[in-house]
Amino acid sequence: MPLSPEQQAEIDAQRSTPQTTLRATAPGMEKHLYTAHPVLDHGFVRVIDYMGDDNAITQAARVSYGKGTKSVQNDEGLIRYLMRHWHSTPFEMCEIKLHVKLPVFVARQWIRHRTANVNEYSARYSILDREFYIPAPDALNAQSVINNQGRGEALSGDEAQRVLKYLTDDAMRCYDHYEEMISDEGQQGLARELARMNLPANIYTQWYWKVDLHNLLHFLRLRADAHAQYEIRVYADAICKITADWVPYAYKAFEDYRMGGANLSATALDCVRRMLKGEVVTQETSGMSKGEWREFEGVIGG
Amino acid sequence: MPLSPEQQAEIDAQRSTPQTTLRATAPGMEKHLYTAHPVLDHGFVRVIDYMGDDNAITQAARVSYGKGTKSVQNDEGLIRYLMRHWHSTPFEMCEIKLHVKLPVFVARQWIRHRTANVNEYSARYSILDREFYIPAPDALNAQSVINNQGRGEALSGDEAQRVLKYLTDDAMRCYDHYEEMISDEGQQGLARELARMNLPANIYTQWYWKVDLHNLLHFLRLRADAHAQYEIRVYADAICKITADWVPYAYKAFEDYRMGGANLSATALDCVRRMLKGEVVTQETSGMSKGEWREFEGVIGG
Amino acid sequence: MPLSPEQQAEIDAQRSTPQTTLRATAPGMEKHLYTAHPVLDHGFVRVIDYMGDDNAITQAARVSYGKGTKSVQNDEGLIRYLMRHWHSTPFEMCEIKLHVKLPVFVARQWIRHRTANVNEYSARYSILDREFYIPAPDALNAQSVINNQGRGEALSGDEAQRVLKYLTDDAMRCYDHYEEMISDEGQQGLARELARMNLPANIYTQWYWKVDLHNLLHFLRLRADAHAQYEIRVYADAICKITADWVPYAYKAFEDYRMGGANLSATALDCVRRMLKGEVVTQETSGMSKGEWREFEGVIGG
Amino acid sequence: MPLSPEQQAEIDAQRSTPQTTLRATAPGMEKHLYTAHPVLDHGFVRVIDYMGDDNAITQAARVSYGKGTKSVQNDEGLIRYLMRHWHSTPFEMCEIKLHVKLPVFVARQWIRHRTANVNEYSARYSILDREFYIPAPDALNAQSVINNQGRGEALSGDEAQRVLKYLTDDAMRCYDHYEEMISDEGQQGLARELARMNLPANIYTQWYWKVDLHNLLHFLRLRADAHAQYEIRVYADAICKITADWVPYAYKAFEDYRMGGANLSATALDCVRRMLKGEVVTQETSGMSKGEWREFEGVIGG
Repeated sequence: MPLSPEQQAEIDAQRSTPQTTLRATAPGMEKHLYTAHPVLDHGFVRVIDYMGDDNAITQAARVSYGKGTKSVQNDEGLIRYLMRHWHSTPFEMCEIKLHVKLPVFVARQWIRHRTANVNEYSARYSILDREFYIPAPDALNAQSVINNQGRGEALSGDEAQRVLKYLTDDAMRCYDHYEEMISDEGQQGLARELARMNLPANIYTQWYWKVDLHNLLHFLRLRADAHAQYEIRVYADAICKITADWVPYAYKAFEDYRMGGANLSATALDCVRRMLKGEVVTQETSGMSKGEWREFEGVIGG
Repeated sequence: MPLSPEQQAEIDAQRSTPQTTLRATAPGMEKHLYTAHPVLDHGFVRVIDYMGDDNAITQAARVSYGKGTKSVQNDEGLIRYLMRHWHSTPFEMCEIKLHVKLPVFVARQWIRHRTANVNEYSARYSILDREFYIPAPDALNAQSVINNQGRGEALSGDEAQRVLKYLTDDAMRCYDHYEEMISDEGQQGLARELARMNLPANIYTQWYWKVDLHNLLHFLRLRADAHAQYEIRVYADAICKITADWVPYAYKAFEDYRMGGANLSATALDCVRRMLKGEVVTQETSGMSKGEWREFEGVIGG
Repeated sequence: MPLSPEQQAEIDAQRSTPQTTLRATAPGMEKHLYTAHPVLDHGFVRVIDYMGDDNAITQAARVSYGKGTKSVQNDEGLIRYLMRHWHSTPFEMCEIKLHVKLPVFVARQWIRHRTANVNEYSARYSILDREFYIPAPDALNAQSVINNQGRGEALSGDEAQRVLKYLTDDAMRCYDHYEEMISDEGQQGLARELARMNLPANIYTQWYWKVDLHNLLHFLRLRADAHAQYEIRVYADAICKITADWVPYAYKAFEDYRMGGANLSATALDCVRRMLKGEVVTQETSGMSKGEWREFEGVIGG
Repeated sequence: MPLSPEQQAEIDAQRSTPQTTLRATAPGMEKHLYTAHPVLDHGFVRVIDYMGDDNAITQAARVSYGKGTKSVQNDEGLIRYLMRHWHSTPFEMCEIKLHVKLPVFVARQWIRHRTANVNEYSARYSILDREFYIPAPDALNAQSVINNQGRGEALSGDEAQRVLKYLTDDAMRCYDHYEEMISDEGQQGLARELARMNLPANIYTQWYWKVDLHNLLHFLRLRADAHAQYEIRVYADAICKITADWVPYAYKAFEDYRMGGANLSATALDCVRRMLKGEVVTQETSGMSKGEWREFEGVIGG
C-alpha cells in the first residue's frame, strides 16, 4: 500500500477544490489528477498537471500547415497522418507532469531519457524512508539463457526463498546502519550525503517528472516494450493507460504506428516483395543474418 | 491593427467558455488567455495555454529538498533562494504556450533558443499574407559608430524618407511578384516552396512557441536586455508583463537577480574590495582591459 | 563557383600542415577536411573537424554492454545490431563540424533540427555579400497538384523566363537598396540590423554546424528523403557522401535500416501477414484509409 | 590503484601509435590522451578524444561576427570578450570525450547534466566488479549543523571506526550475495537486471561521457564549487586540470569570470554603490534578508 493516510488526505483535498479556467481541458485526464496509481510494492504514478489535449495537437499542426491541412477533414485523421509521417512538433504542444515513486535502479534507467524536466527527492538534504522493492514471486526470474539482458522463467523452491531472504535482509541491515550512522544521539552523526551510499538500489526514491507528449510517447515505446525490464515496464504500462484517457486519438495512432508497428529494413522489404510474388525465401537467400531473419520471421509471422 | 474581425471573434469565443478543472490555476494568467497583445505594426503575442504557478515551483522544490526546505518559511523566500543559487529545475516545472506573429528576421534570432517547442506557419504548404514590418520613424536608426551590432540615433529628413520608401516599395514589389509567380491563372504556377524565396525578411510569419519558465526567463534576460535588437526586445517586453502576472514571485526574483543584477569577475570583485577599503583604483591598476573597465564603471557607478 | 581565390588559398594552407595525434583518425575523412564541396549555385559544404570513426561506436557500445557484446564477433555486425535496435547513444560518440554556405530559406528549415551547435554569420554585425540562389532551369518547378508541399514538373517557356527575371531583378534591386541604405557616404547610414530586413530569402548565409552522428543521421533521413525540398536535399546528399567515407559501416547500416527501410503500422503488418497466407487484401478490407493504402502499396510493391 | 595491468597495457598501446591528421590539434591535450588520472580510491578520469582548441572558439566566433571581430586583436582578448558577454555558441564548437569510473551515487548527480552523451556500463548485460568507494578518514564528515546539504568536521574515534566498518562490511556482504544469486552453479541463477538491486550506491560504475566545452564549463562551475559534494568535486577538479591544458585561454577566462566571479543582484549592486559613496550599509538597511546579506558579505569581504 503505497500511500499514507496523510498523503491520501492531501490528494482528497486537492481533488475537492475545482477551479474555473479558460484553458483547454481534457475530461479524461481530470479524473486522474492527483490520484496515485499503485505500481510495484510501494511505488506509484500520479498526474500533477497537464497541458493540452488531442485538439491542441491539430491546432498547432494547422498553424504550421495552414490551408494545407484543410483537406484532412477531422482531428483523428490529421493526428494519424502526423504520426504516420513522423511530424513530431505538434505532439510536443502537449505536456504532462507526473509524481512518481520508484526504486533507484528503475530511476537510473528512466533518467537516461534526457528531454524531460525532473525534480528528485534529495538524499543529500533529507532522509530516505525505509522502503525497498522486493519482487513478487512471479517477478523473480532467472537470467535468460538466450539473451544477455533478458529474464528466463521464475525461480522456484529453495533458490527463490534464498534470493528473497538476501534481498530483504540486506536491505534491512543496510537501512539499520544508515539510520545508525546519521543519528546524532550520543555521536556527531555522519553527513546524509555520505550515509546514503550504504543503501542498495532497490530503495525507493521519488520525483516530479515533466515531459512533452512526443517525448513521452518515445519513452513509452521503449519502456512499455516487451524487451524492457519488467520493473520499468509496469510504470510505462500505468502511464499508457493515463495517456489513453488524456489524448485518445493520439494514443490510438501511437498504438497502431509505434507500439504495434515495426521497422523493416530495405533488405527485409525486398524479401516481403519477393515472397508476395510467390518466391520461397529462406534465411540463406534473404541477405539477412540469422539474428535478423529470426526477428523478421517474428514480425511477418506474428 | 494586427487582428482581423474573424480572429477577434475566435478569441471572444475562446474566452467565453470557461471550464472546470482540478489543476493549479493562475488568476493573473487567465485574464491574458487568448487575448492578442499588439507588438510592432502587425505582430502580436497571445497566451494559448500555461501550466503551473508560483506554487508549482516551490512544490517541486520541496519534493527535491524534502525537510531541507522547511526552514524557509514562505513561498516567496524559497523562490528567491532558488533563483539566487541557480536552482533551475523547479522553474522548469512551469510551462507556457504562446502564439506569436513576428517578422522573419526576428524569428531567425528567436529560434536560436533551442530548448523550446515550435510549430511555425509553413510557406511550403501555404501562402504568406501581404504583411511587412516597416519601422516607425523613431525606430529607424543609424548604425552605431561605437558598437558594431548597435544602433545610433534615429535617421531624419531625406534619408529617413528614402529608407522608408525603399523598404515599402521593395516589399510590395516582391510580394506582387510572389503572388504573380504562384498564380495558376493562365500558367502552371511556381511551387510555393520556391516562390517564398522572393520575400524579404521583414515579412511576417507566425508560430506557436512553448517553453518552460526557466528557459523563458533565460530568453527574457537576453532579449529584454538593452543590448538586444529593438524589434525582438518589444516582444520580450510584452512577455515580461505577461510573466509578471503569471508567476509574480518568480518574476520579481528574476528582476532582482537577473535583469537588474550583474556578474562580476574575480578581478572586478577584487577591485570592489580594494575600493571599499579606500584605495583609488583606476583602469591601469585594475587589471582590466579598457573595455572591461568601462563596463565595470557602468555597473558600480550606475 | 562558390570559392574565391583567397578562400581556396586558405583551404590549401590548412591542408598542407598535417599534425601528429594520438586520437582515432578516419582516413576516409581526412581527404575531405577543409575541401569545399559545391552545392547549388553559390553554396558549399566543407568538413572543419570530426571526432571518432566506426570503431568509436563499437568501443562505446562495449563499455555499455560489457561482456554482453562479446558474442557479436565483428564491428560491422555490432553496428548493424545497434542500428536495428535503435540504440542511439553509441552513435552519439562521433561528432562532425561542417562549414556550410546556404540560402536563408534553406537555413530556416535546417535550424529546426535543435540538437546541434551553430555559429551563423551575423547580419547585425557584418555586411552580407551579393549572392543569391537562382534555381537552374530544371529546378524551377510548378506547384504539385497532388501534394500541398510538393513540386510538379519544371516550368517552361515564357513562365520560366518571367520567374527567373523576377527572382533575379528583385534580388539585385533589394541588394542595391541594402547597400545604399547602409552606406555612410553623405548620410548617416541605416543600422545593419535594420537594413538586412530588405533582403529576400534566397540570399546566402553561412554557418558552422556541429552535430553528433546520431542526430546527423536523423537529419539525413528527413532531408535526404525524396519528400524533402530539393534545395535542402542537395546539401543532405553531399553530407551523405562525406558520411559514407567517414563511418562506412554505420552509413551502410543507415542505408539499409533507415533510408531504404520503412515503418509498417500494426494494421499494415496484419495485411502483409494475410497476403502472405494467400488472402487478396484491398483497401476496403485493409482497415487503412485511402492515403495509407496508397503509401502501403508503394512500400510493398516498390 | 584504479588500473589493472591489462588496462595499463591497453593505454600504453593506444599511446604508442600516433597518426597523422589535418585536424586542429591541442598539444596540451595530446599528453593526456588515454592516460587514467586516479580519483578517489578506485575511480579515474581519462581523455578518450577531443575536438578543437582555443583557436576553434575564435574561428567560430569570427564566422558569426565577421568583420565585427576584427577590432579585437588577439585570440585571448576575443575569448575573454565572449566569456564576459555570455556568448555560449563559440564554446560549443569544442568537444571532449572522457572515460570515467565513479561511484553510483556520484553518477546519479552527474547524469542530471542533460546536455551530454553517455554510454554507461550496463548491469543488465554484465556483471559489476567488487569495487566500492570507502571514504578516506579525512573525508568521513559529520552532517553540517548549519547547512542541510553540507558536511561538518571529520568524524573521529569510535564513531569513525564504526562507520567504516558498516560501509565495508555491508558492501562486501551485499556483493557476496549478489555473486551468489547470479551464480548458475547448482541453481538457475537470478537475472542480472534483478540481482544488481542488492548493490549499495558506493559501488563503482563507469561510462563514456561526451560534452561540448560550454556545457563542460557549466558542469565544472557547479561541481568544482566549494558547495558541491566532495566526491564529485574531486572529479571536477581533475577535469579542470585537463581543461586548462586543452584550452588555456578559455579556461583562464572561465576562472576569472565564472569560478572566481559572483552574480550580484540589483539590491546588492545598489548597496555596493551606496557603500562606495561612503554610506554605512547594514543588513537592516540593505533590503536583503539575513541569508542574502551573509552571502553578500562573503563576496565583497572575501
